[in-house]
Amino acid sequence: MITKVDHIGIAVRDIEEARRLYEALGLKVTHVKEVEEQQVRVAFLPVGDTEVELVQPTTADSGVARFLEKRGEGVHHLCFEVEDIEVALAELQAQGMRLIDREPRQGAFGRVAFLHPKSTHGVLIELVEKS
Amino acid sequence: MITKVDHIGIAVRDIEEARRLYEALGLKVTHVKEVEEQQVRVAFLPVGDTEVELVQPTTADSGVARFLEKRGEGVHHLCFEVEDIEVALAELQAQGMRLIDREPRQGAFGRVAFLHPKSTHGVLIELVEKS
Repeated sequence: MITKVDHIGIAVRDIEEARRLYEALGLKVTHVKEVEEQQVRVAFLPVGDTEVELVQPTTADSGVARFLEKRGEGVHHLCFEVEDIEVALAELQAQGMRLIDREPRQGAFGRVAFLHPKSTHGVLIELVEKS
Repeated sequence: MITKVDHIGIAVRDIEEARRLYEALGLKVTHVKEVEEQQVRVAFLPVGDTEVELVQPTTADSGVARFLEKRGEGVHHLCFEVEDIEVALAELQAQGMRLIDREPRQGAFGRVAFLHPKSTHGVLIELVEKS
């Protein structure tokens, strides 16, 4: 059902500061963009068949800003690519897993859904079906 | 320098409970093993060119047990595969990054080194040169 890890989302206070580490390891930022509806700026650094996504809040009350306040910088979410997001969500519900999004919604790169942290052992998990 | 994400280490209280989620998403546990020197039991679930590694402490005072006590379940570390671990460590030091291991040490699947969390923006990062 899952084809790969689409990206690893890492919450950081300052993309320009945090990218230095990954660049020292040889990764390159391919693009940076604002995601207004989530009040974040994100930078993507491809690595193998996945990407590191650095996520910096652009407002003090965004979800990622609250995450930073509570937990500090660190891995914020894992995004898995799935072939068919409806099939994946139906299977998860059949297995008793809780979802934040019962129906997929449109994301920047395809249809996405988040699982509920109560069912994911502390990992915020996003699914994406790329369009 | 980095060739891929080797694995994503996730600290869990109980592998048998946590694997249900990843199995519902279609992943399969390929092997489970005890790592005595780290006082953990680990389960590997390949996904794309990387693996989810579920890490369960086997003693109450192991590093992962303390992580669970302090932060709860969640992503514990990211492991990146590098071509040449000495070159990687030298480059990181040249860029002013702090290391836990200045010299690589032997791990289960190759030579490994951990970066110091003070330099990694909250992410525990392991490098591995596969043997």
